[in-house]
Amino acid sequence: MKLVGIRRGRAVEVAVHLGDRVTPVAEATEFYADLGRWLPVAREVREGEVEVAEVTLAPPVPASARVICVGLNYRAHAAEGGFTPPEHPTIFGRWTASLSVGGTPVPVPAGEPGLDWEGEVAAVVGTRLTDVDSATAARGVLGYAAFNDLTARVAQKLTQQWTLGKNADRSGPLGPLVTADEVGDLAAGLRVRTRVNGETVQDGNTRDMIFGVGELLSRISRTFTLNPGDVLATGTPEGVGYVRKPPRFLQPGDVVEVEIDRLGVLRNPIVPADERP
Amino acid sequence: MKLVGIRRGRAVEVAVHLGDRVTPVAEATEFYADLGRWLPVAREVREGEVEVAEVTLAPPVPASARVICVGLNYRAHAAEGGFTPPEHPTIFGRWTASLSVGGTPVPVPAGEPGLDWEGEVAAVVGTRLTDVDSATAARGVLGYAAFNDLTARVAQKLTQQWTLGKNADRSGPLGPLVTADEVGDLAAGLRVRTRVNGETVQDGNTRDMIFGVGELLSRISRTFTLNPGDVLATGTPEGVGYVRKPPRFLQPGDVVEVEIDRLGVLRNPIVPADERP
Repeated sequence: MKLVGIRRGRAVEVAVHLGDRVTPVAEATEFYADLGRWLPVAREVREGEVEVAEVTLAPPVPASARVICVGLNYRAHAAEGGFTPPEHPTIFGRWTASLSVGGTPVPVPAGEPGLDWEGEVAAVVGTRLTDVDSATAARGVLGYAAFNDLTARVAQKLTQQWTLGKNADRSGPLGPLVTADEVGDLAAGLRVRTRVNGETVQDGNTRDMIFGVGELLSRISRTFTLNPGDVLATGTPEGVGYVRKPPRFLQPGDVVEVEIDRLGVLRNPIVPADERP
Repeated sequence: MKLVGIRRGRAVEVAVHLGDRVTPVAEATEFYADLGRWLPVAREVREGEVEVAEVTLAPPVPASARVICVGLNYRAHAAEGGFTPPEHPTIFGRWTASLSVGGTPVPVPAGEPGLDWEGEVAAVVGTRLTDVDSATAARGVLGYAAFNDLTARVAQKLTQQWTLGKNADRSGPLGPLVTADEVGDLAAGLRVRTRVNGETVQDGNTRDMIFGVGELLSRISRTFTLNPGDVLATGTPEGVGYVRKPPRFLQPGDVVEVEIDRLGVLRNPIVPADERP
Protein backbone atom coordinates (compact mmCIF):
# COMPACT_ATOMS: atom_id res chain seq x y z
CA MET A 1 0.00 0.00 0.00
CA LYS A 2 1.20 3.48 -0.87
CA LEU A 3 0.29 6.40 1.39
CA VAL A 4 0.68 10.08 0.62
CA GLY A 5 -0.13 13.29 2.46
CA ILE A 6 -2.57 15.74 0.94
CA ARG A 7 -3.25 19.28 2.06
CA ARG A 8 -6.75 20.66 1.50
CA GLY A 9 -7.11 22.84 4.60
CA ARG A 10 -4.55 23.66 7.27
CA ALA A 11 -4.07 20.04 8.35
CA VAL A 12 -2.39 17.33 6.31
CA GLU A 13 -4.48 14.22 5.65
CA VAL A 14 -3.09 10.77 4.96
CA ALA A 15 -4.48 9.29 1.75
CA VAL A 16 -4.14 5.99 -0.08
CA HIS A 17 -2.54 6.39 -3.51
CA LEU A 18 -3.86 4.05 -6.19
CA GLY A 19 -2.83 4.62 -9.80
CA ASP A 20 -3.56 8.26 -10.64
CA ARG A 21 -5.97 8.79 -7.79
CA VAL A 22 -5.94 9.23 -4.03
CA THR A 23 -8.47 8.50 -1.30
CA PRO A 24 -8.19 10.46 1.96
CA VAL A 25 -8.35 8.38 5.13
CA ALA A 26 -7.82 10.68 8.14
CA GLU A 27 -5.94 13.75 9.28
CA ALA A 28 -2.28 12.77 9.75
CA THR A 29 -2.33 13.53 13.49
CA GLU A 30 -5.40 11.35 13.97
CA PHE A 31 -4.10 8.64 11.61
CA TYR A 32 -0.87 8.12 13.56
CA ALA A 33 -2.56 8.49 16.93
CA ASP A 34 -4.73 5.48 16.13
CA LEU A 35 -3.07 3.32 13.47
CA GLY A 36 -4.99 0.31 14.79
CA ARG A 37 -8.17 1.96 13.60
CA TRP A 38 -7.02 3.72 10.43
CA LEU A 39 -4.67 1.22 8.79
CA PRO A 40 -7.47 -1.31 8.25
CA VAL A 41 -9.63 1.49 6.83
CA ALA A 42 -6.81 2.40 4.45
CA ARG A 43 -6.36 -1.23 3.41
CA GLU A 44 -10.05 -1.48 2.51
CA VAL A 45 -9.73 1.29 -0.06
CA ARG A 46 -10.33 -0.23 -3.50
CA GLU A 47 -10.48 2.85 -5.70
CA GLY A 48 -9.24 6.40 -5.75
CA GLU A 49 -11.60 9.30 -5.04
CA VAL A 50 -9.67 12.29 -6.32
CA GLU A 51 -7.18 12.70 -9.15
CA VAL A 52 -3.72 13.12 -7.70
CA ALA A 53 -3.16 16.03 -10.10
CA GLU A 54 -5.96 17.92 -8.34
CA VAL A 55 -4.58 17.80 -4.81
CA THR A 56 -1.58 19.39 -3.10
CA LEU A 57 0.72 16.65 -1.88
CA ALA A 58 2.52 16.85 1.47
CA PRO A 59 4.73 14.51 3.48
CA PRO A 60 2.50 11.76 4.96
CA VAL A 61 3.57 12.38 8.56
CA PRO A 62 2.17 14.45 11.44
CA ALA A 63 3.59 17.92 12.17
CA SER A 64 4.79 16.60 15.54
CA ALA A 65 6.97 13.91 13.94
CA ARG A 66 10.66 13.83 14.66
CA VAL A 67 12.77 13.49 11.54
CA ILE A 68 15.75 11.64 12.95
CA CYS A 69 18.67 11.61 10.55
CA VAL A 70 21.63 9.26 10.68
CA GLY A 71 24.97 10.50 9.42
CA LEU A 72 27.90 8.43 8.19
CA ASN A 73 25.92 5.19 7.95
CA TYR A 74 27.72 3.87 4.86
CA ARG A 75 31.44 3.08 5.16
CA ALA A 76 32.38 4.58 1.80
CA HIS A 77 30.45 7.79 2.55
CA ALA A 78 32.10 8.17 5.97
CA ALA A 79 35.48 7.68 4.30
CA GLU A 80 34.85 10.24 1.56
CA GLY A 81 34.19 12.88 4.23
CA GLY A 82 37.36 11.96 6.14
CA PHE A 83 35.50 10.18 8.96
CA THR A 84 36.25 6.73 10.35
CA PRO A 85 33.25 4.38 10.53
CA PRO A 86 31.55 5.30 13.80
CA GLU A 87 31.10 3.06 16.81
CA HIS A 88 27.77 4.74 17.55
CA PRO A 89 25.28 6.08 15.03
CA THR A 90 25.61 9.81 14.46
CA ILE A 91 22.13 11.25 15.05
CA PHE A 92 21.03 14.71 14.00
CA GLY A 93 17.63 16.26 13.59
CA ARG A 94 15.36 17.85 11.09
CA TRP A 95 12.07 19.42 11.90
CA THR A 96 9.01 18.57 9.79
CA ALA A 97 8.96 22.25 8.79
CA SER A 98 11.89 21.45 6.46
CA LEU A 99 10.10 18.60 4.68
CA SER A 100 8.66 18.84 1.19
CA VAL A 101 7.64 16.39 -1.53
CA GLY A 102 8.74 15.38 -5.01
CA GLY A 103 8.15 18.25 -7.43
CA THR A 104 8.67 20.98 -4.83
CA PRO A 105 11.17 23.64 -5.96
CA VAL A 106 13.97 23.82 -3.39
CA PRO A 107 15.67 27.22 -2.90
CA VAL A 108 19.40 27.65 -2.29
CA PRO A 109 19.86 29.94 0.75
CA ALA A 110 21.88 33.10 0.12
CA GLY A 111 25.49 32.57 1.16
CA GLU A 112 25.57 28.95 0.03
CA PRO A 113 27.45 27.88 -3.12
CA GLY A 114 24.49 25.57 -3.84
CA LEU A 115 22.84 22.61 -2.12
CA ASP A 116 24.35 19.15 -1.79
CA TRP A 117 22.40 15.98 -2.53
CA GLU A 118 22.01 13.02 -0.17
CA GLY A 119 19.69 10.32 -1.47
CA GLU A 120 18.55 7.89 1.19
CA VAL A 121 15.84 5.60 2.52
CA ALA A 122 13.58 6.90 5.29
CA ALA A 123 11.69 4.56 7.62
CA VAL A 124 8.42 5.66 9.24
CA VAL A 125 7.69 4.35 12.73
CA GLY A 126 4.35 2.60 13.31
CA THR A 127 4.47 1.75 17.03
CA ARG A 128 5.51 3.45 20.22
CA LEU A 129 9.03 2.21 21.04
CA THR A 130 10.66 2.68 24.46
CA ASP A 131 13.85 0.82 25.37
CA VAL A 132 13.27 -1.99 22.88
CA ASP A 133 15.64 -4.49 21.27
CA SER A 134 16.48 -4.43 17.55
CA ALA A 135 14.01 -7.13 16.54
CA THR A 136 11.11 -5.41 18.30
CA ALA A 137 12.12 -2.08 16.78
CA ALA A 138 12.34 -3.57 13.29
CA ARG A 139 8.80 -4.95 13.63
CA GLY A 140 7.65 -1.45 14.59
CA VAL A 141 8.36 0.04 11.15
CA LEU A 142 5.22 1.02 9.27
CA GLY A 143 6.93 1.60 5.94
CA TYR A 144 9.62 3.33 3.92
CA ALA A 145 9.97 6.33 1.65
CA ALA A 146 12.60 7.87 -0.60
CA PHE A 147 14.25 10.91 0.95
CA ASN A 148 16.66 13.57 -0.22
CA ASP A 149 18.55 15.12 2.70
CA LEU A 150 19.46 18.27 0.76
CA THR A 151 22.18 20.04 2.67
CA ALA A 152 23.37 23.63 3.00
CA ARG A 153 27.03 22.75 3.58
CA VAL A 154 28.23 26.22 4.64
CA ALA A 155 25.60 26.42 7.40
CA GLN A 156 26.20 22.76 8.32
CA LYS A 157 29.91 23.35 8.86
CA LEU A 158 29.80 26.72 10.69
CA THR A 159 30.10 24.85 13.98
CA GLN A 160 30.38 21.20 15.01
CA GLN A 161 26.60 20.89 15.12
CA TRP A 162 25.01 20.14 11.74
CA THR A 163 21.41 21.10 12.54
CA LEU A 164 21.29 24.53 10.88
CA GLY A 165 22.49 23.32 7.49
CA LYS A 166 20.15 20.35 7.57
CA ASN A 167 16.94 22.37 7.85
CA ALA A 168 16.91 24.81 4.94
CA ASP A 169 13.48 25.70 3.59
CA ARG A 170 11.82 22.80 1.72
CA SER A 171 15.16 20.96 1.71
CA GLY A 172 13.81 17.57 2.75
CA PRO A 173 11.75 16.05 -0.07
CA LEU A 174 10.08 12.89 1.24
CA GLY A 175 8.34 10.45 -1.05
CA PRO A 176 5.17 8.39 -0.64
CA LEU A 177 5.23 5.89 2.21
CA VAL A 178 5.30 2.30 0.94
CA THR A 179 4.22 -0.10 3.68
CA ALA A 180 6.85 -2.51 5.00
CA ASP A 181 5.08 -5.61 3.61
CA GLU A 182 5.84 -4.35 0.08
CA VAL A 183 9.47 -3.44 0.77
CA GLY A 184 11.01 -6.26 2.80
CA ASP A 185 14.30 -6.13 4.66
CA LEU A 186 16.63 -3.25 3.76
CA ALA A 187 19.58 -5.53 4.52
CA ALA A 188 18.55 -7.62 1.50
CA GLY A 189 19.37 -4.60 -0.61
CA LEU A 190 17.57 -1.66 -2.16
CA ARG A 191 19.52 0.25 -4.77
CA VAL A 192 19.73 3.98 -4.00
CA ARG A 193 20.57 6.26 -6.92
CA THR A 194 20.82 10.03 -7.13
CA ARG A 195 20.93 11.86 -10.45
CA VAL A 196 21.65 15.50 -11.27
CA ASN A 197 20.21 16.61 -14.61
CA GLY A 198 20.10 12.93 -15.56
CA GLU A 199 23.71 12.13 -14.59
CA THR A 200 24.12 9.50 -11.88
CA VAL A 201 26.06 10.91 -8.91
CA GLN A 202 25.24 8.31 -6.23
CA ASP A 203 24.67 4.60 -6.78
CA GLY A 204 24.59 2.75 -3.47
CA ASN A 205 22.74 -0.12 -1.87
CA THR A 206 21.10 -0.36 1.54
CA ARG A 207 22.87 -3.68 2.14
CA ASP A 208 25.97 -1.56 2.82
CA MET A 209 24.43 0.31 5.75
CA ILE A 210 26.53 0.11 8.92
CA PHE A 211 23.60 0.19 11.34
CA GLY A 212 20.32 -1.39 10.26
CA VAL A 213 16.92 0.18 10.90
CA GLY A 214 16.07 -2.06 13.87
CA GLU A 215 19.45 -1.44 15.48
CA LEU A 216 19.13 2.33 14.99
CA LEU A 217 15.62 2.55 16.40
CA SER A 218 16.58 0.31 19.32
CA ARG A 219 19.52 2.51 20.26
CA ILE A 220 17.49 5.71 19.92
CA SER A 221 14.67 4.22 22.01
CA ARG A 222 17.06 3.95 24.97
CA THR A 223 17.10 7.74 25.20
CA PHE A 224 13.74 8.78 23.85
CA THR A 225 10.46 7.11 23.02
CA LEU A 226 9.73 6.81 19.33
CA ASN A 227 6.17 7.65 18.35
CA PRO A 228 4.09 6.52 15.38
CA GLY A 229 4.83 8.87 12.50
CA ASP A 230 8.44 9.57 13.52
CA VAL A 231 10.80 9.37 10.55
CA LEU A 232 14.26 7.78 10.54
CA ALA A 233 16.43 8.87 7.61
CA THR A 234 18.95 6.07 7.37
CA GLY A 235 21.93 7.92 5.85
CA THR A 236 23.32 8.42 2.38
CA PRO A 237 25.83 6.32 0.43
CA GLU A 238 29.00 7.78 -1.12
CA GLY A 239 29.02 10.27 -3.95
CA VAL A 240 27.95 13.57 -2.38
CA GLY A 241 29.05 16.81 -3.99
CA TYR A 242 31.07 18.72 -1.41
CA VAL A 243 33.94 16.20 -1.25
CA ARG A 244 34.50 16.24 -5.04
CA LYS A 245 37.48 18.03 -6.51
CA PRO A 246 36.36 20.62 -7.35
CA PRO A 247 33.27 20.53 -5.10
CA ARG A 248 29.98 20.31 -6.93
CA PHE A 249 26.68 21.72 -5.73
CA LEU A 250 23.13 21.91 -7.00
CA GLN A 251 22.46 25.29 -8.65
CA PRO A 252 19.22 27.02 -9.55
CA GLY A 253 18.00 25.39 -12.76
CA ASP A 254 19.33 21.94 -11.82
CA VAL A 255 17.02 19.00 -11.29
CA VAL A 256 17.91 16.39 -8.68
CA GLU A 257 16.37 12.93 -8.57
CA VAL A 258 16.53 10.18 -5.97
CA GLU A 259 15.44 6.75 -7.18
CA ILE A 260 15.11 3.83 -4.80
CA ASP A 261 14.01 0.27 -5.60
CA ARG A 262 10.34 -0.25 -4.69
CA LEU A 263 10.03 3.30 -3.33
CA GLY A 264 10.01 5.25 -6.58
CA VAL A 265 11.57 8.49 -7.78
CA LEU A 266 11.74 11.90 -6.07
CA ARG A 267 12.42 14.70 -8.55
CA ASN A 268 13.04 18.28 -7.42
CA PRO A 269 14.06 21.44 -9.25
CA ILE A 270 16.51 23.80 -7.54
CA VAL A 271 15.59 27.50 -7.48
CA PRO A 272 17.24 30.76 -6.32
CA ALA A 273 17.25 32.19 -2.81
CA ASP A 274 14.65 34.80 -3.70
CA GLU A 275 12.05 32.03 -3.95
CA ARG A 276 12.29 31.53 -0.17
CA PRO A 277 10.39 30.75 1.91
CA MET B 1 0.09 38.84 29.28
CA LYS B 2 0.87 35.28 30.28
CA LEU B 3 -0.04 32.44 27.90
CA VAL B 4 -0.10 28.75 28.69
CA GLY B 5 -0.99 25.63 26.74
CA ILE B 6 -3.80 23.41 27.95
CA ARG B 7 -4.68 19.94 26.75
CA ARG B 8 -8.32 18.91 26.89
CA GLY B 9 -8.53 16.75 23.77
CA ARG B 10 -5.76 15.68 21.42
CA ALA B 11 -4.82 19.24 20.40
CA VAL B 12 -3.13 21.80 22.64
CA GLU B 13 -4.99 25.09 23.07
CA VAL B 14 -3.37 28.39 23.93
CA ALA B 15 -4.99 30.02 26.96
CA VAL B 16 -4.57 33.29 28.84
CA HIS B 17 -3.43 32.75 32.43
CA LEU B 18 -4.84 35.23 34.95
CA GLY B 19 -4.30 34.58 38.63
CA ASP B 20 -5.46 31.03 39.36
CA ARG B 21 -7.55 30.71 36.25
CA VAL B 22 -7.12 30.24 32.52
CA THR B 23 -9.23 31.21 29.52
CA PRO B 24 -8.74 29.19 26.31
CA VAL B 25 -8.33 31.27 23.15
CA ALA B 26 -7.67 28.91 20.22
CA GLU B 27 -5.95 25.67 19.29
CA ALA B 28 -2.20 26.29 19.26
CA THR B 29 -1.87 25.52 15.55
CA GLU B 30 -4.64 27.96 14.71
CA PHE B 31 -3.39 30.57 17.22
CA TYR B 32 0.09 30.77 15.68
CA ALA B 33 -1.22 30.53 12.12
CA ASP B 34 -3.18 33.74 12.68
CA LEU B 35 -1.66 35.75 15.52
CA GLY B 36 -3.11 38.91 14.00
CA ARG B 37 -6.56 37.58 14.79
CA TRP B 38 -5.96 35.74 18.08
CA LEU B 39 -3.59 38.01 19.99
CA PRO B 40 -6.18 40.81 20.20
CA VAL B 41 -8.76 38.25 21.33
CA ALA B 42 -6.35 37.09 24.04
CA ARG B 43 -5.67 40.67 25.12
CA GLU B 44 -9.41 41.26 25.57
CA VAL B 45 -9.65 38.49 28.17
CA ARG B 46 -10.51 40.07 31.51
CA GLU B 47 -11.21 37.03 33.66
CA GLY B 48 -10.32 33.37 33.84
CA GLU B 49 -12.86 30.71 32.84
CA VAL B 50 -11.38 27.56 34.32
CA GLU B 51 -9.28 26.94 37.42
CA VAL B 52 -5.73 26.18 36.40
CA ALA B 53 -5.73 23.25 38.84
CA GLU B 54 -8.47 21.62 36.75
CA VAL B 55 -6.67 21.58 33.41
CA THR B 56 -3.65 19.72 32.06
CA LEU B 57 -0.98 22.22 31.15
CA ALA B 58 1.17 21.84 28.03
CA PRO B 59 3.83 23.94 26.31
CA PRO B 60 2.05 26.88 24.60
CA VAL B 61 3.47 26.15 21.15
CA PRO B 62 2.25 24.20 18.11
CA ALA B 63 3.40 20.60 17.52
CA SER B 64 5.11 21.78 14.33
CA ALA B 65 7.33 24.25 16.20
CA ARG B 66 11.07 23.99 15.93
CA VAL B 67 12.82 24.13 19.27
CA ILE B 68 16.10 25.70 18.24
CA CYS B 69 18.70 25.48 20.96
CA VAL B 70 21.87 27.54 21.20
CA GLY B 71 24.92 25.99 22.82
CA LEU B 72 27.85 27.78 24.42
CA ASN B 73 26.16 31.20 24.44
CA TYR B 74 27.71 32.37 27.73
CA ARG B 75 31.49 32.81 27.89
CA ALA B 76 31.89 31.24 31.32
CA HIS B 77 29.77 28.21 30.32
CA ALA B 78 31.77 27.67 27.12
CA ALA B 79 34.95 27.85 29.18
CA GLU B 80 33.77 25.36 31.82
CA GLY B 81 33.18 22.77 29.07
CA GLY B 82 36.62 23.39 27.55
CA PHE B 83 35.29 25.33 24.55
CA THR B 84 36.53 28.69 23.27
CA PRO B 85 33.80 31.30 22.75
CA PRO B 86 32.42 30.52 19.31
CA GLU B 87 32.54 32.78 16.26
CA HIS B 88 29.18 31.43 15.14
CA PRO B 89 26.30 30.33 17.34
CA THR B 90 26.19 26.59 17.91
CA ILE B 91 22.69 25.47 16.92
CA PHE B 92 21.16 22.13 17.80
CA GLY B 93 17.61 20.91 17.79
CA ARG B 94 14.91 19.58 20.00
CA TRP B 95 11.60 18.32 18.80
CA THR B 96 8.42 19.47 20.53
CA ALA B 97 7.90 15.81 21.51
CA SER B 98 10.59 16.34 24.18
CA LEU B 99 8.88 19.36 25.75
CA SER B 100 7.02 19.28 29.04
CA VAL B 101 5.93 21.83 31.64
CA GLY B 102 6.70 22.75 35.22
CA GLY B 103 5.56 19.97 37.53
CA THR B 104 6.12 17.18 35.00
CA PRO B 105 8.21 14.32 36.42
CA VAL B 106 11.26 13.84 34.18
CA PRO B 107 12.68 10.30 33.89
CA VAL B 108 16.41 9.52 33.72
CA PRO B 109 17.00 7.18 30.74
CA ALA B 110 18.63 3.85 31.59
CA GLY B 111 22.37 4.02 30.98
CA GLU B 112 22.65 7.63 32.14
CA PRO B 113 24.23 8.54 35.50
CA GLY B 114 21.45 11.13 35.86
CA LEU B 115 20.30 14.21 33.98
CA ASP B 116 22.15 17.52 33.84
CA TRP B 117 20.44 20.86 34.37
CA GLU B 118 20.61 23.82 32.00
CA GLY B 119 18.41 26.73 33.02
CA GLU B 120 17.83 29.24 30.26
CA VAL B 121 15.52 31.77 28.64
CA ALA B 122 13.50 30.67 25.61
CA ALA B 123 12.13 33.16 23.09
CA VAL B 124 9.00 32.37 21.09
CA VAL B 125 8.79 33.73 17.55
CA GLY B 126 5.72 35.77 16.57
CA THR B 127 6.36 36.59 12.91
CA ARG B 128 7.61 34.78 9.86
CA LEU B 129 11.30 35.68 9.45
CA THR B 130 13.27 35.05 6.26
CA ASP B 131 16.72 36.60 5.73
CA VAL B 132 16.11 39.46 8.16
CA ASP B 133 18.50 41.72 10.05
CA SER B 134 18.89 41.61 13.83
CA ALA B 135 16.59 44.54 14.56
CA THR B 136 13.76 43.09 12.47
CA ALA B 137 14.26 39.69 14.08
CA ALA B 138 14.20 41.18 17.59
CA ARG B 139 10.87 42.88 16.83
CA GLY B 140 9.53 39.48 15.72
CA VAL B 141 9.68 37.97 19.22
CA LEU B 142 6.25 37.29 20.71
CA GLY B 143 7.50 36.56 24.20
CA TYR B 144 9.75 34.62 26.53
CA ALA B 145 9.56 31.60 28.80
CA ALA B 146 11.74 29.84 31.34
CA PHE B 147 13.27 26.64 29.98
CA ASN B 148 15.27 23.77 31.41
CA ASP B 149 17.34 22.04 28.72
CA LEU B 150 17.70 18.83 30.75
CA THR B 151 20.45 16.80 29.15
CA ALA B 152 21.33 13.11 28.94
CA ARG B 153 25.11 13.63 28.80
CA VAL B 154 26.07 10.06 27.87
CA ALA B 155 23.79 10.10 24.83
CA GLN B 156 24.83 13.67 24.00
CA LYS B 157 28.52 12.74 23.89
CA LEU B 158 28.29 9.38 22.06
CA THR B 159 29.16 11.19 18.84
CA GLN B 160 29.91 14.79 17.86
CA GLN B 161 26.20 15.46 17.30
CA TRP B 162 24.33 16.37 20.48
CA THR B 163 20.76 15.75 19.26
CA LEU B 164 20.11 12.35 20.87
CA GLY B 165 21.02 13.46 24.39
CA LYS B 166 18.98 16.65 24.04
CA ASN B 167 15.68 14.93 23.38
CA ALA B 168 15.06 12.53 26.25
CA ASP B 169 11.42 11.97 27.18
CA ARG B 170 9.84 15.03 28.86
CA SER B 171 13.31 16.54 29.28
CA GLY B 172 12.43 20.05 28.10
CA PRO B 173 10.20 21.78 30.67
CA LEU B 174 9.00 25.07 29.18
CA GLY B 175 7.24 27.68 31.27
CA PRO B 176 4.35 30.02 30.51
CA LEU B 177 4.96 32.48 27.69
CA VAL B 178 5.22 36.06 28.97
CA THR B 179 4.71 38.53 26.13
CA ALA B 180 7.68 40.68 25.15
CA ASP B 181 6.06 43.93 26.34
CA GLU B 182 6.28 42.64 29.92
CA VAL B 183 9.87 41.39 29.66
CA GLY B 184 11.89 44.03 27.84
CA ASP B 185 15.36 43.59 26.39
CA LEU B 186 17.29 40.50 27.54
CA ALA B 187 20.52 42.49 27.15
CA ALA B 188 19.33 44.70 30.04
CA GLY B 189 19.61 41.62 32.22
CA LEU B 190 17.36 38.87 33.53
CA ARG B 191 18.80 36.80 36.34
CA VAL B 192 18.76 33.06 35.57
CA ARG B 193 19.03 30.74 38.55
CA THR B 194 18.89 26.97 38.78
CA ARG B 195 18.43 25.15 42.09
CA VAL B 196 18.72 21.46 42.96
CA ASN B 197 16.79 20.52 46.10
CA GLY B 198 16.93 24.18 47.05
CA GLU B 199 20.67 24.65 46.52
CA THR B 200 21.64 27.21 43.89
CA VAL B 201 23.77 25.60 41.16
CA GLN B 202 23.53 28.25 38.43
CA ASP B 203 23.24 32.00 38.91
CA GLY B 204 23.73 33.83 35.65
CA ASN B 205 22.37 36.84 33.86
CA THR B 206 21.17 37.23 30.28
CA ARG B 207 23.30 40.36 29.91
CA ASP B 208 26.26 37.95 29.57
CA MET B 209 24.89 36.21 26.48
CA ILE B 210 27.37 36.19 23.58
CA PHE B 211 24.76 36.38 20.82
CA GLY B 212 21.53 38.25 21.51
CA VAL B 213 18.10 37.01 20.47
CA GLY B 214 17.82 39.31 17.43
CA GLU B 215 21.29 38.35 16.23
CA LEU B 216 20.57 34.64 16.67
CA LEU B 217 17.25 34.75 14.86
CA SER B 218 18.74 36.87 12.08
CA ARG B 219 21.56 34.38 11.48
CA ILE B 220 19.20 31.41 11.56
CA SER B 221 16.82 33.14 9.16
CA ARG B 222 19.54 33.17 6.50
CA THR B 223 19.26 29.39 6.25
CA PHE B 224 15.68 28.67 7.19
CA THR B 225 12.50 30.65 7.64
CA LEU B 226 11.36 31.03 11.22
CA ASN B 227 7.65 30.55 11.77
CA PRO B 228 5.35 31.89 14.48
CA GLY B 229 5.54 29.48 17.41
CA ASP B 230 9.14 28.46 16.82
CA VAL B 231 11.15 28.44 20.04
CA LEU B 232 14.71 29.70 20.47
CA ALA B 233 16.41 28.42 23.64
CA THR B 234 19.14 30.99 24.19
CA GLY B 235 21.72 28.88 26.04
CA THR B 236 22.63 28.27 29.64
CA PRO B 237 25.08 30.13 31.89
CA GLU B 238 27.90 28.41 33.79
CA GLY B 239 27.35 25.94 36.59
CA VAL B 240 26.17 22.74 34.88
CA GLY B 241 26.76 19.42 36.59
CA TYR B 242 28.89 17.31 34.27
CA VAL B 243 31.98 19.55 34.49
CA ARG B 244 32.08 19.49 38.30
CA LYS B 245 34.69 17.44 40.10
CA PRO B 246 33.24 14.98 40.80
CA PRO B 247 30.46 15.32 38.18
CA ARG B 248 27.01 15.86 39.62
CA PHE B 249 23.75 14.76 38.04
CA LEU B 250 20.06 14.91 38.87
CA GLN B 251 18.90 11.62 40.41
CA PRO B 252 15.42 10.20 40.92
CA GLY B 253 13.99 11.97 43.95
CA ASP B 254 15.74 15.27 43.20
CA VAL B 255 13.80 18.41 42.42
CA VAL B 256 15.23 20.91 39.94
CA GLU B 257 14.04 24.50 39.67
CA VAL B 258 14.77 27.21 37.12
CA GLU B 259 13.87 30.73 38.21
CA ILE B 260 14.10 33.66 35.83
CA ASP B 261 13.25 37.30 36.51
CA ARG B 262 9.78 38.18 35.17
CA LEU B 263 9.31 34.64 33.77
CA GLY B 264 8.73 32.72 36.99
CA VAL B 265 9.82 29.37 38.34
CA LEU B 266 9.86 25.94 36.65
CA ARG B 267 9.98 23.11 39.17
CA ASN B 268 10.39 19.48 38.11
CA PRO B 269 10.89 16.25 40.03
CA ILE B 270 13.28 13.66 38.61
CA VAL B 271 12.03 10.05 38.41
CA PRO B 272 13.50 6.66 37.46
CA ALA B 273 13.79 5.20 33.95
CA ASP B 274 10.87 2.85 34.50
CA GLU B 275 8.56 5.86 34.47
CA ARG B 276 9.29 6.32 30.75
CA PRO B 277 7.71 7.24 28.47
